[in-house]
This record gives sequence, structure tokens and C-alpha cells, in this order.
Amino acid sequence: MKIAIVGAGALGLYYGALLQRSGEDVRFLLRRDYDAITRNGLTVFSVNGDFTLPQVRGYRAPDEIGTVDLVLVGLKTFSNQLFAELIGPLVGGNTLILTLQNGLGNEEALAELFGGERIMGGVAFLRSNRGQPGEVHHLGEGRITLGEYQCCNPERVEHLLGMFTRAGVDCRPTEDLKRSRWEKLVWNIPFNGLCALLRQPINLLLAKDACRRLVLDIMQEVITAANAQGLARPIAEAYAETMLGITYKMGDYHPSMLIDREEGRQLEITAIFRKPLEYGRQQEIMMPRVEMLATLLEQIQ
Amino acid sequence: MKIAIVGAGALGLYYGALLQRSGEDVRFLLRRDYDAITRNGLTVFSVNGDFTLPQVRGYRAPDEIGTVDLVLVGLKTFSNQLFAELIGPLVGGNTLILTLQNGLGNEEALAELFGGERIMGGVAFLRSNRGQPGEVHHLGEGRITLGEYQCCNPERVEHLLGMFTRAGVDCRPTEDLKRSRWEKLVWNIPFNGLCALLRQPINLLLAKDACRRLVLDIMQEVITAANAQGLARPIAEAYAETMLGITYKMGDYHPSMLIDREEGRQLEITAIFRKPLEYGRQQEIMMPRVEMLATLLEQIQ
Repeated sequence: MKIAIVGAGALGLYYGALLQRSGEDVRFLLRRDYDAITRNGLTVFSVNGDFTLPQVRGYRAPDEIGTVDLVLVGLKTFSNQLFAELIGPLVGGNTLILTLQNGLGNEEALAELFGGERIMGGVAFLRSNRGQPGEVHHLGEGRITLGEYQCCNPERVEHLLGMFTRAGVDCRPTEDLKRSRWEKLVWNIPFNGLCALLRQPINLLLAKDACRRLVLDIMQEVITAANAQGLARPIAEAYAETMLGITYKMGDYHPSMLIDREEGRQLEITAIFRKPLEYGRQQEIMMPRVEMLATLLEQIQ
Repeated sequence: MKIAIVGAGALGLYYGALLQRSGEDVRFLLRRDYDAITRNGLTVFSVNGDFTLPQVRGYRAPDEIGTVDLVLVGLKTFSNQLFAELIGPLVGGNTLILTLQNGLGNEEALAELFGGERIMGGVAFLRSNRGQPGEVHHLGEGRITLGEYQCCNPERVEHLLGMFTRAGVDCRPTEDLKRSRWEKLVWNIPFNGLCALLRQPINLLLAKDACRRLVLDIMQEVITAANAQGLARPIAEAYAETMLGITYKMGDYHPSMLIDREEGRQLEITAIFRKPLEYGRQQEIMMPRVEMLATLLEQIQ
């Protein structure tokens, strides 16, 4: 399969490297890492074992790549206005576009430009960081929950599932991509938001009753908004407590948005906060705590 | 009038100095400033003109002062557990206690210890800072709104009003002290809280639509809780917009809680946030944004 990686950061480089290692024809659209990767290849430092790809196909512009079978989108969501420019030249008649980006609104934006029938989405649970140019660090997890944006092509899902599985990625199908995205937000909104705002790891948030209560209240707001979106199966209220239980075991974990703030990068406030707020409001669900958190994060951005 | 100043910080030193200058017999309970003040007196650097009191009566312990006509309480509210120890020895049969502290719950705590009939409260609008030992800086304002905790002794209010007026303080009576305290909170809760949390002056809060909206939403929560407390006259909803209009003219003003945070001091979260939340809840008024703000401030405390 001919695959283009658009947004070759910590996520795109990692999954792209795994796919190339398993035999796929992967083309990376590169900026910062272009010189290092085209000269010396790409090295993955991974909790599952390090490896180097000495020959990697890197490009500076999408029209040098041409049309592909699959575009894998790993862009930070605040760069979504570049979709047309970066992805347009890659799309032929049968091209699939799979976004592994954070939050909500990405499939919709891609569908508007390229048609909904070719859009797929994956919810990625990955801990990875960029290193020096030509390097990427895989710190943990890597699982992808994968589904169609529009109903229904089970063979196509099976095909991508097989591709990721061969590449060593724990990849699972979902028949309700929207639900999977909202489920991830139940965790992401409070923990990414509060940790980034307060510059504290998750165990400090959970150390005080009032703040633990706030986390649960935020989770309930997200669950209520999610369940107003016409999901096939609602998210149970108890999901919040379940998530909290899992989070206790994560110790002094720094969520990605906290790391983004610590390293001075832009925060993905629109996709993770403002889009969910917008979809909630469309169903007349108000989320005062999520709204306040988004506003406070924009204020420190 | 024999007056004891308990809590001789930026507020207590300033009002105490004005009262002594106008001829009252003022006794200061001192810790940090004891040596400097008993040796060299007290200097006020004021926007209204500097002055020095070369002779000031300073004491280390309240029983050295004995009973007085009036105790003026300027303690930071997180030291309210010291009321019995610091004020007890000063109280005789006819002693009045006037608290000029921030937030809610101070009159109640004093009334429980010393009886409600002798308690009065003043809402102080004062910008002052401690300087070197023996010095206090008056940066602006100074107005006091003064009233009875329990109904009703107009002569007593008149008497204190006259005393402050002679001392050069713009002092006005209120027949609804509770309302005056809540009115001040309509400004104090959003601006002290958000500025301290974000480490931003007020003009940065007002620069973005979403944050200005958040300020107004918080103000409305406070107004709703206030109006559930049985005030003689409700606070109008439009009061929020009025306050906002005044605030625009204050430029890059740093509210006192922001200064407290910048200088590493403890924040008055209980009196300014938790007590209003408690009084709200007693009337079944929930304040989700105020609650979230209190929780976030406790988290960085």
C-alpha cells in the first residue's frame, strides 16, 4: 500500500516507521526532519525495542509524492487550515484519508474538502515524543481504535486493521467512531486541561478531594454532551469513576497538553475543547466547567 | 476613644495611623513591626500626603493592652482561629468589635465568641501595602462602608462614622451590611480569583471576549447567591455590567490576591470563596464556576 504521512511529528513518524518496517510503501512529508531523515534515515527508540530505517522516502512538498492509496494524518489540529494545501495533491479517485488527530472536528473538516466517503478516523492512545531530527521516542502504548466516518465499509476497515496489526500496532475496530472520540475526551478534557492549566501532573490533581470532585464533574459534563450526539449506545455515568480508577495507577504522569505547555508549544484547544463545546451546544447541552477550562487555557496560551 | 488594632498589616497600620493622628488613643498589637515602631514610630507614605507618628503605642500581647472601647480587626482571614487569643483580653462590658476583613464569615465567627450585639463590620475599599518595618504605603482609595452585624443602633454607627470622618476616611453607613459584603464579592470573586490564578492583571482578562464573558458569568453566580440571602433589596443583574464598566478604567491593575500570590503569601480562599459557596449552598444556590475557581486556587496554594 502506498501511504503518505502528513504531519510527521511524534505520532506520524512513529506509525509511519512501523508501517514501513512491515513492508508498506511509506512517503513522509517532512519539514524539520527532512535533511536528517533523507540522509541518515529514521530511528525509533521504543519501549518495545529500538530500530532504524536506513532508507526513508522524505519529501518537502505533497505534489512530489503524488496520489497515494492512504493518507495518514497526524497534524496538530491547529494546523487543520493546511488540509487542502498538504493533502489535496495526494488524493486520487480511490484514496483513503485516515486522521489520527486529537479531539473533534477533524473528520468533518476533511470530509468537507475531500468527500465523507473516503474519510476514516482512528483514536490513538500513544505516548511518544520527537527527539533530535531523524529520531522519535515511543514511551508507551500505541493502540488505535479505528472506524469509518460515514457508514459502512467493513472490508475497508478490515484492510486497515490488518495493515496496522502486521505493523505491530494493537488496532481495534469501532462501529461508532463518534462514541470512541467522545470516550477519549472524557479523560482528555479534564486531565489535559487541568494539568496544563495548573502545570501539575495527574497525581497532584487527585491528591485533594475538591479537585478530584472537579475532575468528576467535568467528566460528567462531557458524558452528558456525548450522550446527546445520537450515539448507538450511551456512555454510562459510571465510566467517569472507572476512568478515575485507571488514572490513579498512572502516578505522576504528564498528559501531552502539559508537556506541550512545558515545552512552549501551542495547545490544541479548538479540537479538544471548543469543538466538543460547539457540538454540545448544538444539542442544547451546556458545559460550564469545560467552557471555563477552555477559556482559562486560551488565556494562558 | 481607646482603640486596639488587631492585625496591624497594610490595612490595620493605615487606619490606625489615621485614627491616632486625629486624636484617638490607639494601641497597636504588633509582631514584625514591634521594634521599628516602638523605637522610631510609624510612617505613612500616602497618595494624600506622607506623615510620621513619632510616638506610637505598640504591644506584643493583648493582655498588655487590656480592655478597650473599640477593637479594629484587620487580620488576614486565614488567621481567624486566633480571634479568641488575640481579641479576648481586649473585650470589656462595652467594647465594640469592628472587623474590616475581607469576604464572609468574619462577623459570624466574632459573634460566636463575643456575642453578636457588639459586632460591627466595615467593607474597606483600600489599596495599601506594607513596606519596611515601621512603614505603610497607601496607594489609593480608603473608603469604608460601615454597618451593624445585628440590628440596630444608629447612634453607635453615627459615632464610628464621625470618628472615621474626623480621621480623614470617607466612611458611609449601610443598613444592610450583608448586602455590602456580597456587593464587594461580585467584583472580588472573579477579579481576585482569575487574576491570581492566571497571574494576569485585569486588563488582560478583559482583552478577550470569552474571558470577559466568564467574568460576567461568575458575577451572575455571585449575584444569584447574594439575592438568596434575604437582603432588604436585591442586587440588580445589571450590577455586573456596571462593575465591568468601572473595571475597564482600572488599566493593568493588580488585585490584592494577585499581589499576594506574586509575593508568595497565603490566599484568603475561605473567606472570599468557600464561605460564599457555603452560604449559597444553604439556600440551594449552586455556583459551579465559583466552586471551580476556588478549587483551582486551592490547587496552586
